[in-house]
Amino acid sequence: MTTQQLVSEIKKKKSFLCIGLDVDLNKIPKHLLKEEDPIFAFNKAIIDATHHLCVAYKPNTAFYEAYGIKGWKALEKTIEYLNKNHPNIFTIADAKRGDIGNTSTMYAKAFFEDLAFDSVTVAPYMGKDSVEPFLAFKDKHTIMLALTSNTGAFDFQTKEVGNQELYKHVLETSKGWQNSENLMYVVGATKAEYLADIRAIIPDSFLLVPGVGAQGGNLQDVCKYGMNDQIGLLINSSRGIIYASNHEDFAEKAATQAESLQKQMEIILQ
Amino acid sequence: MTTQQLVSEIKKKKSFLCIGLDVDLNKIPKHLLKEEDPIFAFNKAIIDATHHLCVAYKPNTAFYEAYGIKGWKALEKTIEYLNKNHPNIFTIADAKRGDIGNTSTMYAKAFFEDLAFDSVTVAPYMGKDSVEPFLAFKDKHTIMLALTSNTGAFDFQTKEVGNQELYKHVLETSKGWQNSENLMYVVGATKAEYLADIRAIIPDSFLLVPGVGAQGGNLQDVCKYGMNDQIGLLINSSRGIIYASNHEDFAEKAATQAESLQKQMEIILQ
Repeated sequence: MTTQQLVSEIKKKKSFLCIGLDVDLNKIPKHLLKEEDPIFAFNKAIIDATHHLCVAYKPNTAFYEAYGIKGWKALEKTIEYLNKNHPNIFTIADAKRGDIGNTSTMYAKAFFEDLAFDSVTVAPYMGKDSVEPFLAFKDKHTIMLALTSNTGAFDFQTKEVGNQELYKHVLETSKGWQNSENLMYVVGATKAEYLADIRAIIPDSFLLVPGVGAQGGNLQDVCKYGMNDQIGLLINSSRGIIYASNHEDFAEKAATQAESLQKQMEIILQ
Repeated sequence: MTTQQLVSEIKKKKSFLCIGLDVDLNKIPKHLLKEEDPIFAFNKAIIDATHHLCVAYKPNTAFYEAYGIKGWKALEKTIEYLNKNHPNIFTIADAKRGDIGNTSTMYAKAFFEDLAFDSVTVAPYMGKDSVEPFLAFKDKHTIMLALTSNTGAFDFQTKEVGNQELYKHVLETSKGWQNSENLMYVVGATKAEYLADIRAIIPDSFLLVPGVGAQGGNLQDVCKYGMNDQIGLLINSSRGIIYASNHEDFAEKAATQAESLQKQMEIILQ
């Protein structure tokens, strides 16, 4: 999917919501555990109920790997279901991968070719040659961690490197990488005030913003500082939507939560 | 496996060699492609031929994910084969994972419990709460990237943070994390001279050292600067051993390469 197609979808749906599909079998409604594939059954129900309210879905690979082969099958089925039924929805493999060059190429093939995700998240610590293999894929997007929403973000990301914080140095440096137009960035919503500085460095890039709601971020602030003239934001919510209820009405309640965010977004987009 | 058990194995086998099981179907001998599970067939042959010469095996997860479900099955079979037949060999899931707390716990369960690896590699960028969930597992080891062996290491890892390079700040900071005695570190062999500084910060920790041989690192230098009184080193070689030949004699040739390194290690250990 091209960035322009993503922007079109945002304008059409009046939403820049991304829903995180982080399926924990201990948290989903009990009645689903009787299904042959409870993870996929849960995802399918959530997707069916919310696809008109969001522009992206983001399964975090940890939740699938934790269930071994069964988990990977559920991940495969979920992405196949999305690509078949909702090809205009942007898909994110939240995998936070990164390795030396030839190894990163294997990861890129796994997520971009075999699973056919539109994008994958990567970690920057190993530098240019660990990220460029992902950037080489046309119309695929590599979403690099810049400033994350957890407390550990302050351990290294905000430390001063020369005259700027590490995460800014990461942003600045990455602009010079080959095919850097395929980069997007993870920027936690819990630090909305940082977004103005970030926009000064990367005015045009899309930002994937976790941490709105449950983790304390404020949607209005994020949009005030982070939005650009192509919108440039994907706001992720996972638990707040998918676990809104753990009864038979879980999908309906998820849609209610998603709609509440979409309505706020619609107002902001006006 | 405890660290003490690993040290005993090193002394018994006179080897601190780790063999990287990075299986690329384009590189393995053609005759194996007829097997039902060529990846596992390759690994089994390599393990059968080299297990007396090394103390650790390290499959890099990228090479398994790249083959989807088939790849994950091969990874499961490989770790099961190792745990059943060679329980004294230290196993490393080279996954370079890291995420926010509850998500890192899912990764830790995947690798430590379901797959029953002794250790997993993690990336430090997201800080303390992304790594501590791994450290909570008793007699399991978390091998954190410090200074990697690729050129991208110089993009961020060697940048000055305050009065020290980022990788040293990472080492220093991690010492204060809960259960930090379960930490080991990845330190690339291409920078052997850095090892003296690293040992000043973490004198007792085990270091996983890639990059000897193919990537230019020198075994004698690494040992001179990096060895401690509990040995404290695992030297990894992947391609140099497993792809020593791509004919029917591949396992035999792999053993010859592994033995050459083991013999050098035996001399160093005297």
